[in-house]
Amino acid sequence: MTEAFWVNGELRDQVSVSDRGLQYGDGVFETLPVKHGQIALLAYHLDRLYAGCERLAINAPSREKLQSELLSAACGEQHAILKLLITRGVGGRGYRPPPDSETTRILTRHPWPDHPSAWSGVGIQLRVCSTRLGHNSRLAGLKHLNRLEQVLARAEWSEREPWQEGLMLDEEGAVIEGTMTNVFVCMADGRRITSELSRCGVAGVMRRHLLERAVEAGEPVQEAQLSLKELQAAREVFVCNSLIGIWPVRRLDNQEYAVGDWTRRMQHWAREAGIGTD
Amino acid sequence: MTEAFWVNGELRDQVSVSDRGLQYGDGVFETLPVKHGQIALLAYHLDRLYAGCERLAINAPSREKLQSELLSAACGEQHAILKLLITRGVGGRGYRPPPDSETTRILTRHPWPDHPSAWSGVGIQLRVCSTRLGHNSRLAGLKHLNRLEQVLARAEWSEREPWQEGLMLDEEGAVIEGTMTNVFVCMADGRRITSELSRCGVAGVMRRHLLERAVEAGEPVQEAQLSLKELQAAREVFVCNSLIGIWPVRRLDNQEYAVGDWTRRMQHWAREAGIGTD
Repeated sequence: MTEAFWVNGELRDQVSVSDRGLQYGDGVFETLPVKHGQIALLAYHLDRLYAGCERLAINAPSREKLQSELLSAACGEQHAILKLLITRGVGGRGYRPPPDSETTRILTRHPWPDHPSAWSGVGIQLRVCSTRLGHNSRLAGLKHLNRLEQVLARAEWSEREPWQEGLMLDEEGAVIEGTMTNVFVCMADGRRITSELSRCGVAGVMRRHLLERAVEAGEPVQEAQLSLKELQAAREVFVCNSLIGIWPVRRLDNQEYAVGDWTRRMQHWAREAGIGTD
Repeated sequence: MTEAFWVNGELRDQVSVSDRGLQYGDGVFETLPVKHGQIALLAYHLDRLYAGCERLAINAPSREKLQSELLSAACGEQHAILKLLITRGVGGRGYRPPPDSETTRILTRHPWPDHPSAWSGVGIQLRVCSTRLGHNSRLAGLKHLNRLEQVLARAEWSEREPWQEGLMLDEEGAVIEGTMTNVFVCMADGRRITSELSRCGVAGVMRRHLLERAVEAGEPVQEAQLSLKELQAAREVFVCNSLIGIWPVRRLDNQEYAVGDWTRRMQHWAREAGIGTD
């Protein structure tokens, strides 16, 4: 893997200090897994990116252009990560978005982060973060560049501590997501739930894949409000994203969970999409 | 005025695409007014910047260094704006802040934005934005780089429309601030209020100056919850920041306000600090 950086299609690792991505976090991003030169769920990543640009009224580059740049950057790579940022570009006095700014696209390639295979196998330990997610329905679901809440939450524990992921609640104490993952649970009565994300949270690409796959399999997962109490009482819990696939949760504070059939079935569906340990 | 850009003290207008300021909005900023080579309320700007760095656990450069760089950039300038960004710098895998990152400091100098003097004189027209501010007590008050809410709010109207500033409410409908200003009101019963900012909003430098000056003058302003109804029933309303000073509000939707003695006294105090039309 060669680390590499492109700005607007040219090999460069610098951007203007006036870029609104830096000035205001005025943009969106995607982090994509590369395996054997391919990008799993690429169409879903692009769908979310375009939905974000549309919501923020950013003039996105054409889908064909982005797709071809992403695939060139992936070409020949055995295992890597691509990160694509789209910002509103340079310009505008103050917060007002200039009507005619030229979007900046920043593409970077990084080594694959090797997580212990046990995290997919026997599962991880989850902690509850004290940093909460604020509500903003206009930004909810998007993977935008305003990520201080996640930075603060991830700073709450170090890598020497026993947790692999942190759970984030919203202002009102509802369970929303992990710092970099979405959360799925199967309750003792068989109900399958993932947190609804109409007021905050990032609607993950792996989350979408699993929701769709679960409908096809006739065992749909409900998008609903989820309380910490419900999570603690759940039979199975896992977190997921489009890089790691699915990590079963074996422990949350003093609560232990078994890794059950439902989680294993979900992992199978993630692998079908090319994501997660084979 | 010569526009100029410095990164870490060197004349440069580019930063690394890996800077966490761009990647996550992981940093804080200040916008400072320069008049005749001087920066009004410089100490208050630095106080807020350091409070922000402390809250985000960013290793801020020394106060002496920042102060001397700001004053050099101001030196000889008749009328200009400085903008200073401090980011956590490059590094870290994902959201987790690296323990030893080197802070990036970005200083830029821009022309003074000439607003019509009538806005300070007869006042402005304010609109109510539909974009709401989400609550996050850990970020409230700070001037951090996650500013999408302000960008969306400011995009709600164009410069051809009759409004000069937009009012932002929080999730629950409380009046918090303007897109780039704080709000002060004097009620019919004489109570003087500015919105309390414990859950969202930016605690402005001019706001602090006025709050302190009002106490000295024996007519303190209360930091309190403020409803839209109270604002509509107010006798005097103004918005303020450390660049424009104070703009009286003469109209909010169909509600008209007089520009009264209290607002004029406040404008006098702003001018005492070197801010606002002479």
